[in-house]
Amino acid sequence: MSAVRKPIGVFDSGIGGLTLVKALVEELPSESVVYFGDTARVPYGTKSKSTIVRFSLENVEFLLRFDVKCIVVACNTSSSWALPTLRKYFKVPIIGVIRPGAMAATRRTRNKRVGVIGTRATVESRAYETAIARIDPAVTVSSQSCPLFVPLVESGWLNGSVCRMITEQYLDPLKQQGIDALILGCTHYPLLASTIGQVMGEGVALIDSAKETVAEVRGMLMGEDLLCDQHVKPRYQFFVTDEADHFTQLGEQFLGRSIRSVERVNHR
Amino acid sequence: MSAVRKPIGVFDSGIGGLTLVKALVEELPSESVVYFGDTARVPYGTKSKSTIVRFSLENVEFLLRFDVKCIVVACNTSSSWALPTLRKYFKVPIIGVIRPGAMAATRRTRNKRVGVIGTRATVESRAYETAIARIDPAVTVSSQSCPLFVPLVESGWLNGSVCRMITEQYLDPLKQQGIDALILGCTHYPLLASTIGQVMGEGVALIDSAKETVAEVRGMLMGEDLLCDQHVKPRYQFFVTDEADHFTQLGEQFLGRSIRSVERVNHR
Repeated sequence: MSAVRKPIGVFDSGIGGLTLVKALVEELPSESVVYFGDTARVPYGTKSKSTIVRFSLENVEFLLRFDVKCIVVACNTSSSWALPTLRKYFKVPIIGVIRPGAMAATRRTRNKRVGVIGTRATVESRAYETAIARIDPAVTVSSQSCPLFVPLVESGWLNGSVCRMITEQYLDPLKQQGIDALILGCTHYPLLASTIGQVMGEGVALIDSAKETVAEVRGMLMGEDLLCDQHVKPRYQFFVTDEADHFTQLGEQFLGRSIRSVERVNHR
Repeated sequence: MSAVRKPIGVFDSGIGGLTLVKALVEELPSESVVYFGDTARVPYGTKSKSTIVRFSLENVEFLLRFDVKCIVVACNTSSSWALPTLRKYFKVPIIGVIRPGAMAATRRTRNKRVGVIGTRATVESRAYETAIARIDPAVTVSSQSCPLFVPLVESGWLNGSVCRMITEQYLDPLKQQGIDALILGCTHYPLLASTIGQVMGEGVALIDSAKETVAEVRGMLMGEDLLCDQHVKPRYQFFVTDEADHFTQLGEQFLGRSIRSVERVNHR
């Protein structure tokens, strides 16, 4: 297979990375995608760095079987803790969601105050702080872990009084910092954007790292002469470690289109 | 080692099974315990039956290395889906939390209306319904999955308005069924007993399956002549699949005493 026609590999701890695949399909419609979701071991955001790194290494190894031309780490938690190790071990280009999200926030803020919300592991890693400090050291970053957001989304409680109250509890400290840009640093959080936007108010820009990352993927592929801009029919394959059915049902909400070809693998 | 002095093996998807160990230590103070918490793959309650069974088989295999005299499945989700398979494959006596909880609820209810709360997997398994129907077919069972309860507990939000509002949302349908006994069908839920009790009102008995299970363990050990009632110093060992530190910190809240000897194992 010509290098250009090779698929893009994407992995996530579970289902949330499909929001990134959605943006990828829209923006790069000729690219084929192999998606791997570690649904048997999800979530990663409550686990330790060493476990997250170990799982991420295994996920990349799995995707390499498909001769992917690059790998996108859709999971913020994996991107936060594992990216340096992945890049040290593997030659394939690997793109995470942190730098693209940090770039966008730094571009969007006017008062140089940025907020980050994510899992416990992402927040503890301080990966967004490090990335933003490299881009513009004058920007101050306030961060907040939101452990109830993923179960809220997976329960379908995207609006209503419980969702609103939890969102206020998490975001009040960030509002008090006077931020004007907020990075939604977990694949599930864009589904709460409406409530988050109401709580934060109109003056605060919400940054979806997944969307920003697709632009970086495009740029990298162009730079490496790997962009597939021919008029070809792409192929989408999905692999998960837990049962396929549950993934397919919930996944179609995240992807915004029907999912075929989901296969369960005994990753571990 | 004499059979009586062999340790009791306990496994759970994570940290919550320590509430059962706490009861075990209090009720059977001469028994040694080997605890296994699959903290790298926690939670089980959002996973499918086949994955839960596979993980549970691996957990029993791990505990058998310690020549345990019996195994207690502290996890409601594992007990719900995996117990028949575990008993089919292994000769060691294996006790789950479902039947003891079902027995207690059937004993306590006066109006023959029992409620069950648990993870999605536990509720879908209908394991409590099946167990209660065997004991007293006249009892009707209403069940409700509460996916936000575990993250609430792990966030330490055991009281306050968010906790109260979520609890009301989950329990209102059970209140309307007029139940007078409620099985707390997940190891984490007893930590919410105060809020759950306020929402349900005084007339509703809260059943902690872990406590009930310890009585069944004692009975089984007596029946098999395996009860250690000599005055010996017990040994407590803890094994986890994610990092030991986080387990130790949170675990001491569940166990109500300090935890020594935690070892990380690469289960998978």
